[in-house]
This record gives sequence, structure tokens and C-alpha cells, in this order.
Amino acid sequence: MIARRVAEVADLVTVALDELLPRADGPDARLTEAMRYAALGPGKRLRPYFALEAARLFEIEERPVLRAACALECIHAYSLIHDDLPCMDDDDMRRGRPTVHRAYDEATAVLAGDALQAAAFEILADPDTHDDAEVRAELIGRLAHAAGARGMAGGQMIDILGVRDDIGAVARMQRLKTGALIAYAFEIPLIIARAPDAQRQSLLMFAQDLGLAYQIIDDVLDHEGDADLLGKAAGGKDAARGKANFVTLLGVEAARARVAHLADQAGAHLEAFGKAADPLRASIDFVLGRDR
Amino acid sequence: MIARRVAEVADLVTVALDELLPRADGPDARLTEAMRYAALGPGKRLRPYFALEAARLFEIEERPVLRAACALECIHAYSLIHDDLPCMDDDDMRRGRPTVHRAYDEATAVLAGDALQAAAFEILADPDTHDDAEVRAELIGRLAHAAGARGMAGGQMIDILGVRDDIGAVARMQRLKTGALIAYAFEIPLIIARAPDAQRQSLLMFAQDLGLAYQIIDDVLDHEGDADLLGKAAGGKDAARGKANFVTLLGVEAARARVAHLADQAGAHLEAFGKAADPLRASIDFVLGRDR
Repeated sequence: MIARRVAEVADLVTVALDELLPRADGPDARLTEAMRYAALGPGKRLRPYFALEAARLFEIEERPVLRAACALECIHAYSLIHDDLPCMDDDDMRRGRPTVHRAYDEATAVLAGDALQAAAFEILADPDTHDDAEVRAELIGRLAHAAGARGMAGGQMIDILGVRDDIGAVARMQRLKTGALIAYAFEIPLIIARAPDAQRQSLLMFAQDLGLAYQIIDDVLDHEGDADLLGKAAGGKDAARGKANFVTLLGVEAARARVAHLADQAGAHLEAFGKAADPLRASIDFVLGRDR
Repeated sequence: MIARRVAEVADLVTVALDELLPRADGPDARLTEAMRYAALGPGKRLRPYFALEAARLFEIEERPVLRAACALECIHAYSLIHDDLPCMDDDDMRRGRPTVHRAYDEATAVLAGDALQAAAFEILADPDTHDDAEVRAELIGRLAHAAGARGMAGGQMIDILGVRDDIGAVARMQRLKTGALIAYAFEIPLIIARAPDAQRQSLLMFAQDLGLAYQIIDDVLDHEGDADLLGKAAGGKDAARGKANFVTLLGVEAARARVAHLADQAGAHLEAFGKAADPLRASIDFVLGRDR
């Protein structure tokens, strides 16, 4: 049932992004095609799903949340393009298809990522996203922060340097690299609903636990994963690269136990929202059992 | 005299950017250092100069213009980092110093560019930039548009593909690649002053002519230029790469004549502003005679 709702949201996002992303008919069409290849390809759209499900906790319209979630997906898509580059993780495949620099070329991949980042902020700044400019500006400021040096980009820098010899360092790296954008998915409805601080805090703690659990599961899949299922090379890639992660540091069993603990803790943060948070509770299990 | 004012503005911008750009003390410090290396290094800061001089046409405070100009410089700096990458123009030197991927490494250069783009929008979204969120959102939307697929990134795509066999194609490429950000420098005060359409149109036509003249001079310098003076490899680099530009298509004489014509035309667009536009008029000559 939750899988059906996730699939529904994925379709909504793909249709909306298709309308929002630019097209070109000159030689620059190569750029817009590469942007679309990356942003409209297969993907679970988990971040938009979180944004839309969290939005149900508040009495707000879905449309502004969906548009902001599309902006978030542009940032997520750009980060994958750049992370896959030869000078970064050097991946040839992503979700069962050639990565952008393999399907096009490196220069196009760099530019497509750059232009997707700009597109995210152009979408958010558009009055069509929300008629209150204060809301738009806050959505932009928080996304820029989450994507930048004190968020995702900073986490990716730490990841590349491989500076992490203990669980604390790995957790900090992941909180920046993947946690910041996951948290932003929840910030979208919080900002639009102008939710009180107590609700904001609860939901963001939920997001943090969920994000960390999600990442640990990713490391477990990296360790045990099946290449076909992941659509990318698997089998302990981090370990092969000499990079510490939750599994190399904790072992699979302890990593799974930590996920279970985080799941309980995440659920507890939702108590104040009562039954309205049931879909979000269900999403914890979905994340835990995900096969991507 | 104008050179002194340009230098003054450059100092103002460097001091302001130094305060606005993030710092880190963990392993992510490598990222913030690379961002600072690129954004705080030597540079004429012509775009901020245009923004601040154009601001004098209106009764507006300097501070919001300066902050928006800093955001513009972040975008400009990121574009130079990415343009210099091995998969793009593959340049080792920029303004007499190693390019970011030479001073650091490619992965850091990609990330520093990405994080500078995010920083630009974070600066603009901050209530400290302007207390009217409508103004902030418009500043963001226009910058995102100017930087994205329908602006700078689109122009860079066309440039890389080398698709330009006539002057029209080269002019269109440059209008996107460099013209969009130069025009944005003038949009900053226009947006903040909520200038009427007639003024907006005149100033943006001035910006377009000035931007094109600036680019043709750049091609002339590429053709005739002295490597020491430019701080990068010179001597007809476009020609050596088989790329058409204004000089390869028109010849130096005709290119210079076109610059003179554009300068006259640019000056004419300022008529409605009267004597208040004298500093901007003087900047035409500065651009014409620039040695960077």
C-alpha cells in the first residue's frame, strides 16, 4: 500500500518536473536533454514522498509542496550527476542506465548538474510556487544551506577525503551529505505551514533518525547488495575503495541493530502528531525494507 | 579616476565576500578554502562595479546592492572554476595563479563551484540582503535564470560544442555565456529600486551592448594578447582550438570597428538618465581600453 503511494508520488513529481524543466531547440538542446535524462529518469522520489506525506500533518495545499519537492529533486539529481563524475566516484551506471557523463560526456555532465542547481532556485523563486514571497525566500535559503558547504557539498568533500575513522565521523559526514536534503524534504511543509517550533523540532529529529537509518541500510546494501537490484556496482564498493562506513566499522549485525534502534526512536518523535502521522510511521518500515 | 573607483569597489566586494563565505574547521575546510581561493583572489570585480555604478542612478541604499553583487560574484567565480576544468577548457592558470583544480584537485574544484553557486542563493535569500522578501525572491529568480540553461550554462554548452559558423551564432552564444551575468549586474539596482519599465529597458540595452563590446575586446585580446598581461595563455587560443570567434570571423580591424559602434550605441541608451549616468558612460571607455 505504501509502495503504491510512493509510486503515485513519483509519477506526480515526474510529470511536474517535465513541465518545470527548460527545453531548448538550438545547440543548447544537448544541455536540457542531459538535465532531463538525469532528472526524469527512474527513481523512487523518496524525498518528494517525505515532503508530501509530511504535508498531510498540516492544513496546506499540495501544489506548493509539490513544486518545492521538484526543486529538491533538481538538487538531488544534480548531486548524483556530479558524484558519478570520473574525478569523484567514477561510476558508469546509475539506476540501471549509463550515468550522464557516460550517456553524454563529462563537460555536458558538469554543466547539466550546474544548470539543474540553478533550475531548483528558479522554480522556488517563481511566484507560482507560493504567493507569499517570505515563504519562497525561506524555502530558498534553507535549500541553499542544505545543498552548500555546510550541507551536502561539505559532506561530499569529507566523503571524498575519506577522513573517518570512527562512527562519529561517518555519522557527521552522512548527516551533511545525505541527511541535509532528507531533512529539507520535511522543512518544506514546515516552512509552508509556518509550523510552531515544537512541531518543527519533532519532525526534524524524525528526519534525522530516518536519514541516518536510510544511510546505514545503504551501507548494508553496498556490502550485501545485488548489482542488478541496485542498478549500480555492488559488493562492498566502499570497502574496496578503503572507505570506512557503518558496516566496515560496526559489522552487518550491529549496523542492522542500529537501524532498528533508530527506527524506534524516529517513531517516538512522531507521537505529538497522533494518528495523522501514521503514513509517516509506515514510511519508516518502507525505508527499512527498501530494495531501491 | 575610474580605475580608482573600480579598485575601490573591488576592495569593498572582497571584504564583503570574505564575511559572507562560509568557513569550516573540520576536514570540510578544504572545500571552504577552495571556495575562498577562487572567490577572494585577484579580479577586477567589473560586474559588482557595474551594479554599484548603476545603483547611483536611483535613490537606493548601497548595502543591498553590494550583497547582491557578492552573490553575483559567487556565480561568476563558480563558472570560472568549472570552465577551467580539464573536461571543459582545461586551463592551468587564471589571473596569474593556478586554477582551482591545479591548486587543489578536480573533485574539490567541482565541489567548490557547486558550493559557491549554493552560497550565491543563500546570500540573496538572507533577510539581511533586503527587508522586502519580494525583492529578494526577484533577485534570486533573475540570477537563477541568468546562470541556468537559458543563460550562462546554455551559452557554455554552445561554446563547448563549437557550433558557430557565423557572427549571429557567436553573438547569441556570448549573449548567454557572458551577457546574461553582465545584464544581471544592472538588474540588481533595477529590481531593488523597482524601476519603471522604460528605465529597465534602456539600462538593459546598455548592458547588452556593453557586454557584447566587452566580449569582442576579449576576443581581440585572445588574438593579440600578451600572456603576462592576461595571466592566462594567450595568442589566439580560440583559433588554435578551431573555435570561431569575433576576430576569426571578422578580422581584428572589423572587430574593433564593431566595438566602437557598440560603444556609441551603448552611450545613446543612457541619454534618458542625463548627467547622472556619467560614471556609467566613463565605464564604456574603461571596458574598451581594459587590459584586465
